[in-house]
Amino acid sequence: MKNKQNQRKVRLAGMGKALAGRQLCFDGHTRYRLAPGETLLDLAEKAAEEALSRSHMEISQMDCIVCAMATPLQGIPCNAALIHERMAKGLNIPAMDINTTCTSFLSALDMMSYLVAAGRYSRVLILSGDTASAALNPGQKESYELFSDAAAAAVLTKAEDSDPSAVLYGCQRTWSEGAHDTEIRGGAGLLPALALTEDNREDYYFDMKGIKILRLCTRVLPDFVEECLKEADVRREDIRLTIPHQASKALGVIMPRLGFEKGTYIDRVQQYGNMVSASVPYALCEAIEESRIHRGDLILLMGTAAGLTVNFLLLRF
Amino acid sequence: MKNKQNQRKVRLAGMGKALAGRQLCFDGHTRYRLAPGETLLDLAEKAAEEALSRSHMEISQMDCIVCAMATPLQGIPCNAALIHERMAKGLNIPAMDINTTCTSFLSALDMMSYLVAAGRYSRVLILSGDTASAALNPGQKESYELFSDAAAAAVLTKAEDSDPSAVLYGCQRTWSEGAHDTEIRGGAGLLPALALTEDNREDYYFDMKGIKILRLCTRVLPDFVEECLKEADVRREDIRLTIPHQASKALGVIMPRLGFEKGTYIDRVQQYGNMVSASVPYALCEAIEESRIHRGDLILLMGTAAGLTVNFLLLRF
Repeated sequence: MKNKQNQRKVRLAGMGKALAGRQLCFDGHTRYRLAPGETLLDLAEKAAEEALSRSHMEISQMDCIVCAMATPLQGIPCNAALIHERMAKGLNIPAMDINTTCTSFLSALDMMSYLVAAGRYSRVLILSGDTASAALNPGQKESYELFSDAAAAAVLTKAEDSDPSAVLYGCQRTWSEGAHDTEIRGGAGLLPALALTEDNREDYYFDMKGIKILRLCTRVLPDFVEECLKEADVRREDIRLTIPHQASKALGVIMPRLGFEKGTYIDRVQQYGNMVSASVPYALCEAIEESRIHRGDLILLMGTAAGLTVNFLLLRF
Repeated sequence: MKNKQNQRKVRLAGMGKALAGRQLCFDGHTRYRLAPGETLLDLAEKAAEEALSRSHMEISQMDCIVCAMATPLQGIPCNAALIHERMAKGLNIPAMDINTTCTSFLSALDMMSYLVAAGRYSRVLILSGDTASAALNPGQKESYELFSDAAAAAVLTKAEDSDPSAVLYGCQRTWSEGAHDTEIRGGAGLLPALALTEDNREDYYFDMKGIKILRLCTRVLPDFVEECLKEADVRREDIRLTIPHQASKALGVIMPRLGFEKGTYIDRVQQYGNMVSASVPYALCEAIEESRIHRGDLILLMGTAAGLTVNFLLLRF
């Protein structure tokens, strides 16, 4: 690591995760969708309770609540205020949203690590999760059969001097040539929910142009990854485990092309599909539970997001 | 200032603002709403161009684009990706959203000041703005006649050692007892746009419970302000100008009760009403233009937001 001055001494104290209650199967691929009466708030609360319990902490000890989700729960207020109401009502913990769509967890962890390292906050609860099922288009098979509803959460704390845990390097880039390759055009400011008619219904569904995204990723990802590895001064073989965003089954094609051999990264697309902002923290939490990661290991979180945004985040776990 | 170690050496290099093109008048109060064909992207771009020009910089020199807005433009992607497409297409500047509803600009400035001070970013473009008109309920006179559509933007840079400019102190709190006092329940995950019917139309409008908000503010704000002033080690008389969120005409009652006498803070509710996330940066930009603020002045940004979230941010301009 040459950029030691940019290391942030923080620790993922504990993580948790939750899957929606209804299980579907498409051609051998398992997907999870909200059961009747279930909401993202239920999943997020469950994941957060698990993260807190594994950190041996209570919600009242958190001094910041961050929702790192791709989609809003309501038009107003922000998601973190609604989670706060569920878990922290009566406490005055600050609540805020950080959003880079599918890589929101990486962005939130990256950004909050600066605030924790600087002493502004000591214990931050970060929650990710989305319910793509709220806007999936039954007429668009590729996306309709890809997504799962899930949540994941993490408690981020300051790392003691004797603790090797740290965020070592973070990088984000956005190529807005891809801004409309993954989108939900309607429901918000530009095309309000109240403007819904029988004729423009399609605009309110999730819309994914898989081939276009793949083409843009193929163009920009190789250089991006090389530059990040170089700037972080790390070699692929030094990384214990890479946890990429589980964008689609193209993952198994793209990762080897980026120089990450099978077995060095997590691919759970068949088991869960794309869990939007929960994909990376869910897979990270599972890898910790399965002891694929140990304290002191070098791990890489990376991913693509609607935007097109890409994130690269190197941690000493 | 006792917390000198927490000062962040950053500078608001330049600011810009834009009003929607259609002017209305309600009982002597002027309000601005989108003209036909106009969108928030137009206003945000105009404000950002002005901020860049006053900073003597180009968009290509920015190394981060942050949208600090209360409401989404689309369900996906985040607002910053859509602004990026408008202004920075072909560049790979990272783009992200930070959202605490009406105080989003304060939260973004507060958070990004840590990343700029740490050297992660050098020149950050922060854009705020909302078009409340997309969801105003003509049947709710209090809110229907309160809001204006507007945008404001700022370029945040690192301050040289010889430059007095800095973020001196920031504090945020959320009291989620107020989570449903200001809301748009529909259009997103919990009540999707596609679930709109003739019977639940009201849920897709902006809904404000003015009296409840005022009661919660009256309960929590006095202690919050006293604690912040004490922690920042600053007296009201040291502050050159206070720029509060222009929540409603109750501003003129609340500010004196918080110990801020008329003339020491900006009240432009009659001229513009509540401009949601643009309120504070718009008023700040105007105060700079009118030479009410000079370099080196101590200024206080503060505000309430749906959540209920409150922010207090002390700057050396």
